[in-house]
Amino acid sequence: MPVVALLTDFGNQDHYVGGMKGAILTVCPDATLVDLAHEIPAHDVTAGALALASSWRDFPPQTVFVAVVDPGVGSARRGLALEAGGYRFVGPDNGILSLVMADVEGPAALHEIANASLLRPDVSATFHARDVFGPVAAHLARGLPIAQVGPVVSDPVTLPQPILRALGKGEWEATVVHVDRFGNLITNLRRRELEEVLASVANDWSDIVVVVEGEILPLARTYADVPEGEGCALMGSSGRLEVAVHRGNAARLLGAGTGAPVRVRAVGPVL
Amino acid sequence: MPVVALLTDFGNQDHYVGGMKGAILTVCPDATLVDLAHEIPAHDVTAGALALASSWRDFPPQTVFVAVVDPGVGSARRGLALEAGGYRFVGPDNGILSLVMADVEGPAALHEIANASLLRPDVSATFHARDVFGPVAAHLARGLPIAQVGPVVSDPVTLPQPILRALGKGEWEATVVHVDRFGNLITNLRRRELEEVLASVANDWSDIVVVVEGEILPLARTYADVPEGEGCALMGSSGRLEVAVHRGNAARLLGAGTGAPVRVRAVGPVL
Amino acid sequence: MPVVALLTDFGNQDHYVGGMKGAILTVCPDATLVDLAHEIPAHDVTAGALALASSWRDFPPQTVFVAVVDPGVGSARRGLALEAGGYRFVGPDNGILSLVMADVEGPAALHEIANASLLRPDVSATFHARDVFGPVAAHLARGLPIAQVGPVVSDPVTLPQPILRALGKGEWEATVVHVDRFGNLITNLRRRELEEVLASVANDWSDIVVVVEGEILPLARTYADVPEGEGCALMGSSGRLEVAVHRGNAARLLGAGTGAPVRVRAVGPVL
Repeated sequence: MPVVALLTDFGNQDHYVGGMKGAILTVCPDATLVDLAHEIPAHDVTAGALALASSWRDFPPQTVFVAVVDPGVGSARRGLALEAGGYRFVGPDNGILSLVMADVEGPAALHEIANASLLRPDVSATFHARDVFGPVAAHLARGLPIAQVGPVVSDPVTLPQPILRALGKGEWEATVVHVDRFGNLITNLRRRELEEVLASVANDWSDIVVVVEGEILPLARTYADVPEGEGCALMGSSGRLEVAVHRGNAARLLGAGTGAPVRVRAVGPVL
Repeated sequence: MPVVALLTDFGNQDHYVGGMKGAILTVCPDATLVDLAHEIPAHDVTAGALALASSWRDFPPQTVFVAVVDPGVGSARRGLALEAGGYRFVGPDNGILSLVMADVEGPAALHEIANASLLRPDVSATFHARDVFGPVAAHLARGLPIAQVGPVVSDPVTLPQPILRALGKGEWEATVVHVDRFGNLITNLRRRELEEVLASVANDWSDIVVVVEGEILPLARTYADVPEGEGCALMGSSGRLEVAVHRGNAARLLGAGTGAPVRVRAVGPVL
Repeated sequence: MPVVALLTDFGNQDHYVGGMKGAILTVCPDATLVDLAHEIPAHDVTAGALALASSWRDFPPQTVFVAVVDPGVGSARRGLALEAGGYRFVGPDNGILSLVMADVEGPAALHEIANASLLRPDVSATFHARDVFGPVAAHLARGLPIAQVGPVVSDPVTLPQPILRALGKGEWEATVVHVDRFGNLITNLRRRELEEVLASVANDWSDIVVVVEGEILPLARTYADVPEGEGCALMGSSGRLEVAVHRGNAARLLGAGTGAPVRVRAVGPVL
């Protein structure tokens, strides 16, 4: 039973997610449909790209992801299908797949959706999740080779990657890119980059602190490494540095949100 | 694998949707369950009927819909099962199925739920989605002929259809019946009616404008036909005229909501 | 097709529920996944335990429940797997399973999650729903005998049960433990206890009233037993006494919420 995972900015109050699922099941009746996220802020392509990049590796190989945050629906923007890392992805060509593409090692195939026989009859001008992306994903889930979707694309729209800025000897600045339900502040700093920082300046995690809104926090392994109500930074479950408060809400307690700077500073003997 | 699609006003914060699904899977273990909408405003039968009428055609034939917005649960109101257009529908007899019935062409079978052997043992007085409608839908999904649900019903409760009012030569008034997550204003004016309006007064869509809260907007094919931040009217994905702002929120920018009048006016040479 | 039902405090705005589902499907591809509740208030173990205890009997036998409200993730708290009443349950050892355990009659098997071969490789310190509980549930859904999860546990963390207090001859005090989407006030008073109260003091339900925030309400069978806009108490669908207003919102109209006292008083001829 093929898995099709859905990420949109449709919210849950309308019938749009349901209609998209109906269209997928019309093409691929035995699909297992999984909601990945539908409360992406309306039209926020970057937030959608980040949520997708944070979770696609949690799914079984061959999963097909449909990612639709699509403020340009009805314009001339292309639709894309991507095969990479053993997974498939479908969505508009506006950067929503670009953070996955930046993460994948190994070969990737990227095609424009051009094969009209794959689409729902009478494609609307406003609901391509139902009429274009969902059906294409369903055909891929049924085993369609990706090359049959359409011609190869070599110039997809790419989102700027938030940069880890080096501020000087032993200090870097990351950025909060998401605040989750618990108030944890998720940054753009990935495990590999943190390990490079560590390797360059510190012998040990205890030689590193993180500074958010003037508060100096230790780098911890887990929330429980600090007392209840106190803050820390740690490598989160999606492989990004996050700032948390043990059994508390870091966003509220620190007064920080998306876009806030997070400084990573060596305090031990600098190597 | 039969599809059972669920529409309720239960919201997502309680366990009610889950309990209903548990009851369905108890009867029909191989059902594919799809959430169509659960954030219908509490007790708003009209909003539920509208959401159902807007999306049932998106699903594969033979899908069974369970639609439960049921302020009269526990009273003497009947339960209904409907077969129409190749689909099945189950819900209370309060009008929630009536907009679908008004849409369907061809024969329809409407039966009262009376066969107690289909229900969950110990039917509660307050949760018929779990104890009555869900199990009946599950039996239909397993192939039960609809006539075995109970006797034929000829006098179902019917919601008043919002009317397109003719205001005078070349002008009509529709009504906003829903505001979606993106702030699009969905009206009661359907494609067929718009085409009739067009045929009677205009040579072309560009001969028509739409007036909302004093703003005169063009009739467009898609959001991208107008500049960013500007408004238009278009045929939405559910086959109804809607008012939108390109990459913006029409409800907020126009200050309009459910119940607002939307005038459709011929401005070209009237035929 | 095994059913795996999910209850968490993850909310629906992040990708966490989706990631957990991806991990489950990686182990058990043919699982039918059902969302039981994800909007449990963050870190509110009691609310999670109550929602689980209110709905597990709605599901088919052999269903595996994953219940994760887990403020202690990453600490030394144990993980548990429970087999009871023909169902299986997985979650942290913080009391979230304890209300189910208190409800079950007959034998129960309770084991600590210790078998590392069942877990996701590279268990994170912060997301055990994906890395521990989800995969263990998936193995149970595939048929793993519960004893292979780990050693027997005899001293699980247990939540205090809200007590029905006897106030004097013919009067008891219950407590509101949940307010649902419709504003119904769900109490800790269960059917068995109400029947004991009735048997001890009253001939009939009409000999009992319920007092909430100074309002005296009748004990009814269903909402429709009182006029629209008026309040009543009744046995709710989860087997607990609840206070409701017919076609209205009891929480708002009575000004009562979680923690409010609800008095049950005999007014007929006391036996």
